[in-house]
Amino acid sequence: MPIITLTTDFGMADGYVATMKGVILSIAPASTLVDLSHQVPAQNVQTAAFLIYQAVPFFPSETIHLVVVDPGVGSQRRALAVHTAQGIFVAPDNGVLSYVLASADVREAVSLTKPAYQLPQVSATFHGRDIFAPAAAHLANGVSLERLGPRAINLLRLPLSQPERRPNGDLVAHVMHVDHFGNLILDVAADDVDEECVFELGGRSIEGVSGTFADVADGELVAYVGSSRDHVEIAVRNSDAAQELEIGIGDRVLIRRIL
Amino acid sequence: MPIITLTTDFGMADGYVATMKGVILSIAPASTLVDLSHQVPAQNVQTAAFLIYQAVPFFPSETIHLVVVDPGVGSQRRALAVHTAQGIFVAPDNGVLSYVLASADVREAVSLTKPAYQLPQVSATFHGRDIFAPAAAHLANGVSLERLGPRAINLLRLPLSQPERRPNGDLVAHVMHVDHFGNLILDVAADDVDEECVFELGGRSIEGVSGTFADVADGELVAYVGSSRDHVEIAVRNSDAAQELEIGIGDRVLIRRIL
Amino acid sequence: MPIITLTTDFGMADGYVATMKGVILSIAPASTLVDLSHQVPAQNVQTAAFLIYQAVPFFPSETIHLVVVDPGVGSQRRALAVHTAQGIFVAPDNGVLSYVLASADVREAVSLTKPAYQLPQVSATFHGRDIFAPAAAHLANGVSLERLGPRAINLLRLPLSQPERRPNGDLVAHVMHVDHFGNLILDVAADDVDEECVFELGGRSIEGVSGTFADVADGELVAYVGSSRDHVEIAVRNSDAAQELEIGIGDRVLIRRIL
Repeated sequence: MPIITLTTDFGMADGYVATMKGVILSIAPASTLVDLSHQVPAQNVQTAAFLIYQAVPFFPSETIHLVVVDPGVGSQRRALAVHTAQGIFVAPDNGVLSYVLASADVREAVSLTKPAYQLPQVSATFHGRDIFAPAAAHLANGVSLERLGPRAINLLRLPLSQPERRPNGDLVAHVMHVDHFGNLILDVAADDVDEECVFELGGRSIEGVSGTFADVADGELVAYVGSSRDHVEIAVRNSDAAQELEIGIGDRVLIRRIL
Repeated sequence: MPIITLTTDFGMADGYVATMKGVILSIAPASTLVDLSHQVPAQNVQTAAFLIYQAVPFFPSETIHLVVVDPGVGSQRRALAVHTAQGIFVAPDNGVLSYVLASADVREAVSLTKPAYQLPQVSATFHGRDIFAPAAAHLANGVSLERLGPRAINLLRLPLSQPERRPNGDLVAHVMHVDHFGNLILDVAADDVDEECVFELGGRSIEGVSGTFADVADGELVAYVGSSRDHVEIAVRNSDAAQELEIGIGDRVLIRRIL
Repeated sequence: MPIITLTTDFGMADGYVATMKGVILSIAPASTLVDLSHQVPAQNVQTAAFLIYQAVPFFPSETIHLVVVDPGVGSQRRALAVHTAQGIFVAPDNGVLSYVLASADVREAVSLTKPAYQLPQVSATFHGRDIFAPAAAHLANGVSLERLGPRAINLLRLPLSQPERRPNGDLVAHVMHVDHFGNLILDVAADDVDEECVFELGGRSIEGVSGTFADVADGELVAYVGSSRDHVEIAVRNSDAAQELEIGIGDRVLIRRIL
C-alpha cells in the first residue's frame, strides 16, 4: 500500500483536493492518502517548500509526495517527478522542492510530458488533477519514473533562508515559518546557538536557549531547539509569540553573544 | 475497497464527521473514506449541490457519495439513496442532488426507511450518523439499493442556475460559486462565449475568453474556461477576484457581443 | 485493519498532524487513520475531553484513540495508554480522558516509558510524534499494553461539568460545548428535564423540551435532547444560538419548573 501525501494551497472547502483524490484512487485504488497541508497561503511556494521539508523525514522513503502550489499553471514551467533518498516528489518546477533538494540528493528527475500518464483531457488551470495526481498514482502503481517523460536537469532552486553573520560575530536570523501556535521557526541551527546567546526581537530579548518551553513560566518568552531539522524556535509558553511580538515570516531576529 | 466520499456542513472542529466515519468503519471496515468538503456554509444546499456536481466525474462510477447538508433533519423530508451513472448518492431529499441529477439519469432511487440498515437508536437531529452513514456503509458492503427501503419517485429538484438571454442577444450570467482563491464560477458554458465577448461586472470589463489566467499579467482580470464541467470562470491572476470586485454567489455578470 | 483516531490542537496548516501519520504508517502501514478533530483550541484540555467522549461510542471498541492536547509537553506529566471498554486511549495524563473515564472503567493503564516503542530521538516539544504516535502504532500492530511501560495508577481526572441543584428545585446548568452551528450543549441529561421546564439564558426563555429543532420555526429558540450521550442542547433553528445570545462555554442556564 504505497503512501501518497498531498500538499496544496487549495483549502478544503471546494472539493478540489477531493477531486485529485478521486483521480488517484481511480488509477491506484490501494493508495493510502495523507493530507500534509492544504492551507498553504495561496501561491506561496516558500511556505510549501518549508512544510514538506519538515514533514518528509517522518515518512517511509518510498512515499510519494504530491505538491501542488502552482502559480505558474498553464505557463511553460515544467511538471516534475523527482526521486530522492527522502521520497519521490511530484511537483511543479517552481522552487517548491528547494529545501528538500538541499537536504537530499536527486537520484532521478523527469519532466511529466507523456500523455499516457495524464488524464485524457488536460485543462489549462488544474494540472494538479490532470497531470500531477495521475503521475503520483501511476508511480504508486509501480510505473518507473523514466516512463513518465524525459530526464529533467537544472531544477529550479530558490535562495534558501540563511542567517547573516556580522563582522562582530552577531547573527541575524530570519523567521522561516510561523506555526498554528504562533511559534516562530528560525533559519538558525541548534549548533549555532548556546547558553551564551541573547535573542533580540520585537523590542524584547531572551537569554540563552532552553530545552523546551516547559522550562519557563506561562506567558514567558523562550528560545529552544525545535522538534524538526534542529531549527531554533521562539515561543511564548501557552500563548502566541507571533501575535504578541507582531512578528511574521521574513522578519529578523538578532542573536548576540554575551560578552 | 469501495470509496465513500463525505460532504457536509459540519466543519471539522466537533468530531461530528469522525462520528459518521466511526459508524461507517464499524459496518464496512474496508471502505476508503474521502472528505469532499465539510465547509459547506451551514444549511446551504445550493453550494453542496454545486460542489458534488463538480467533483463526482473524477471518481470511479461505483463510488458512494454521502451528502449531509440537511436543514430539514427531523422533519418529514425523505432520506434517499440514488443510483446514477455517476455514482451512488446517499442524501436527504432536499434538492442537494439537483445538479448531479441534471447531468446523470436516475437508475434507481429508494427511501431509507428500513430500520435494519439504520443505527439501533435514531436521534431526531443527527441522521447523518444514524441513517445516512449506515446506509452508505451497507451499500459499500454490497447490500442492494432496494433492500434499504421502498422505491422513491419525484425527487426534489431545485431550479438550476442558468443565464438569461436578453432580446438584444446579451447574456446575463450568474456567479454559481466563489472558490478558495476568490475565482468566480459562472453558470455559462464554454460554448456560449468566445473572443468576441465582453464581460461586465463590478464596474469592470474583460474582453474575450482566454485559455488560462496565465495568459494575463499578475493582478489582471481574466475570463477563461474553467477546469470542470466547462463553466466559464473569472479570476484576477494571483489575487482574489471576489474580494477585489466585491462580488459573491448569485451576483450577475453581463456578457455582451462586440459589434 | 485497526482504526486509529487523532485528536489534537495542532490545526491542519503546518504538517504536524501529517508528521504523526507518517510515523504511524511507518510502523503500522495497514492502519486506518481518522481525524477526530485538530481544531481543539490551543491547549484546551477540557474541549478535547468533551469531543472524544462524544465520538468514541460510535467507533469499534478496539479502536485506538490518540489524543495530543498537551500543554505540559516536556514537563513531568506522564504519557499514558489506557484500555477501557470504549477503546484504547493514548494521551498525556492531564485530564483529557476525564469524561471518557467517567463513563468507562479502566481495564489497564500504563506509562509510556519504554524507549523501544518511541522514536530513536525524542524531542522535548513534540511527544505527539515521538512518543504517542509510535505507541498508538505499536498497539495497532498488536503489541500488548504492558510492554509499553509500567502500570499507571491515579490517572489525573478533572472536575466534570455538572448542574447545581438549588434549594427551590431549580437547576443551574452550564454550557459544556458550543458546536460549529452555534448550538449549545449543556451538562444536563435528558432525564433531568421535561415539558414542564423553562430554560432561561441570555435574557431569553424557552418553555419545555422539544424532540428536535425542526419542531420550531426558523429563527426560533429551542431546547431539545441532543444526539449524543443524551445531553440537552439549545439551538436557534437554522441560525447560531451562541452568537445570537452571546453565550459561550461555561456560561450558566437556569432551568426552572413551571408551577
